[in-house]
Amino acid sequence: MNGFRWQPEATDGAARAGHLHTAHGVVATPTFMPVGTAGTVKAMTMDSVRSTGAGIVLGNTYHLMLRPGAERVQALGGLHRFMDWPGPILTDSGGFQVMSLGALRKLDSDGVTFQSHIDGSRHRLTPERSTEIQHMLDATITMCFDECPALPAETDAIAASMRLSMRWAARSREAFVARDGYAQYGIVQGGTEPQLRAESVRALTDIGFEGYAIGGLAVGEGQALMFQTLDGTVPLMPADKPRYLMGVGTPDDLLGSVMRGIDMFDCVMPTRSGRTARAYTGFGTLNLRNARHALDPRPLEAGCPCPACTRHSRAYLHHLFRADEILGPMLLTWHNLTYYQRVMQGIRTAILETRLGAHAIELRAGWAAGDPPP
Amino acid sequence: MNGFRWQPEATDGAARAGHLHTAHGVVATPTFMPVGTAGTVKAMTMDSVRSTGAGIVLGNTYHLMLRPGAERVQALGGLHRFMDWPGPILTDSGGFQVMSLGALRKLDSDGVTFQSHIDGSRHRLTPERSTEIQHMLDATITMCFDECPALPAETDAIAASMRLSMRWAARSREAFVARDGYAQYGIVQGGTEPQLRAESVRALTDIGFEGYAIGGLAVGEGQALMFQTLDGTVPLMPADKPRYLMGVGTPDDLLGSVMRGIDMFDCVMPTRSGRTARAYTGFGTLNLRNARHALDPRPLEAGCPCPACTRHSRAYLHHLFRADEILGPMLLTWHNLTYYQRVMQGIRTAILETRLGAHAIELRAGWAAGDPPP
Repeated sequence: MNGFRWQPEATDGAARAGHLHTAHGVVATPTFMPVGTAGTVKAMTMDSVRSTGAGIVLGNTYHLMLRPGAERVQALGGLHRFMDWPGPILTDSGGFQVMSLGALRKLDSDGVTFQSHIDGSRHRLTPERSTEIQHMLDATITMCFDECPALPAETDAIAASMRLSMRWAARSREAFVARDGYAQYGIVQGGTEPQLRAESVRALTDIGFEGYAIGGLAVGEGQALMFQTLDGTVPLMPADKPRYLMGVGTPDDLLGSVMRGIDMFDCVMPTRSGRTARAYTGFGTLNLRNARHALDPRPLEAGCPCPACTRHSRAYLHHLFRADEILGPMLLTWHNLTYYQRVMQGIRTAILETRLGAHAIELRAGWAAGDPPP
Repeated sequence: MNGFRWQPEATDGAARAGHLHTAHGVVATPTFMPVGTAGTVKAMTMDSVRSTGAGIVLGNTYHLMLRPGAERVQALGGLHRFMDWPGPILTDSGGFQVMSLGALRKLDSDGVTFQSHIDGSRHRLTPERSTEIQHMLDATITMCFDECPALPAETDAIAASMRLSMRWAARSREAFVARDGYAQYGIVQGGTEPQLRAESVRALTDIGFEGYAIGGLAVGEGQALMFQTLDGTVPLMPADKPRYLMGVGTPDDLLGSVMRGIDMFDCVMPTRSGRTARAYTGFGTLNLRNARHALDPRPLEAGCPCPACTRHSRAYLHHLFRADEILGPMLLTWHNLTYYQRVMQGIRTAILETRLGAHAIELRAGWAAGDPPP
């Protein structure tokens, strides 16, 4: 023991391909994790999530602790059984959501007290409680409870917040119950300050985790500054452990981050956009509410194996969104998650074949080219 | 020609089993048609509709003519291709929906002028236009344009309305373009007045249709009066043609109506109820929002092959509805449509084995027994 490990397979520059071995199965990396906030990837059955090629999904501690409650999920056999996903599940710590509550939450050095956005009831999260909840959910990968400051902020404030997160990381590790094939990831903080990021990596590696995440990015700093921060941070992180960039991003963000050594991602973009008629494709994004699709008999994206593309026309998808039919979000979420998985699989194959540079040029040219005329 | 026909297979009392042969495939009867109002069975992909065992679906002329428009559906290859349902489709005439518009519609002897509920635009439906629209949609089965009075009403008003519908039926027939494997059904009106229903049957059979529907029921008259009206009407209808009871109903309504000689049904109940947490099962209905399901690890209905029942607990379904997750309506619609098809298949098998009486007793005992305790 421990059956949890990341097995490298190939590198191409800083990019890595490998396999994540877990108690709940093996996942090829780099990998994108669909977000299953409240025990469901919105507008998808888990069979359809599987059909997109997803190997691991994310659950939100904050949402699940409030509804239906961690004790209830545990009593029902854990999150895997609850949501019909026997594969690996990563849960966040609840920290990010709680910090986003603004006036509804109060931070102290021990943890956070907050009011539920659902019914106003009072709750408390500490490193110990967050870790316990994730254990009750039976998360394959548990995340440390951390504090994520809003950017921009003064360096002193970012430093203080990062150091608090590092103390909480040590307490989270203390509270974590090791089980074969299970993991806990530490979260590197420090805003966009290289020396703070470096200090954070040192603090976490001193504690020692099965994997390391980068938090506190994709919060408005822009892609250039995000990539710059990765350039300064990723090389400091252990090469033999999986690296997870939290809450990122667009397909172009994923590509650039993999090229900087990231292995794992999660983001609500493909699912949220799917519910608002925004499609991700190899020729960039398009909005299916746009009237130009109303009579277009073409598939959304030729060659895409998802049912939105193999079964229907753009005109039909346009109609579904205009008529506020549930099937619109269902089909477009399916497409977007399929596209995200195809991007990741394409990148992975390119790494294995040591041609990621050329592949990146192709991908970016496609996104820049835009929708071909009918 | 005509490739459209209803082929009898067995009878049990007044109940009939058979097959409907159409240009778009063969459907075993009795059959329940899921309602695909606006070119989609709400919250279902057409693959999932197929998986429930449905053989034919219904589309709504009123909704489709307003959005996306019949011309647009025709330009895109017809409703079958538009909605990914190569099997038979029956379209209603738009009459029922237009009559329900109240102050937004104005009836004259030639047709109805009305305002769209979507954008207030003015439209007109006549027997000729309704028939033309259904042709443009490429409906396998076209319904006559008729007027359906609200009940209760004076006998004179019902008679006048029925006779108007009969004149419209003749004009609808005149406008219908016969095609091999396609059909047009006349609609028997006359409220709950036996002599008016008889007069309506005579008028329609004098015109001659490929099938006959009973309209104007399930509008608040109650099951007893509905069954009484069927008892007086169905025996007058041609025995060699399919019989369709429009807009009906609960599983118990379907059973009682098949036992009176009906072959085809449509109703929004299983789909609409699926979106509001109401489940139809062999032990009656239940509301999954009810707190008693919150910790129940049992499937909604043991033995049901739908994914709501094979993959999830009642507790999970309860959680989805409490959290307003789209997957709740998706799974429960799937279950309800599966249950409706199972009821129809069970009834059909019982007719083929000449044991419908015993089967009816079993079904009713199950519905009356209620949910077994955990």
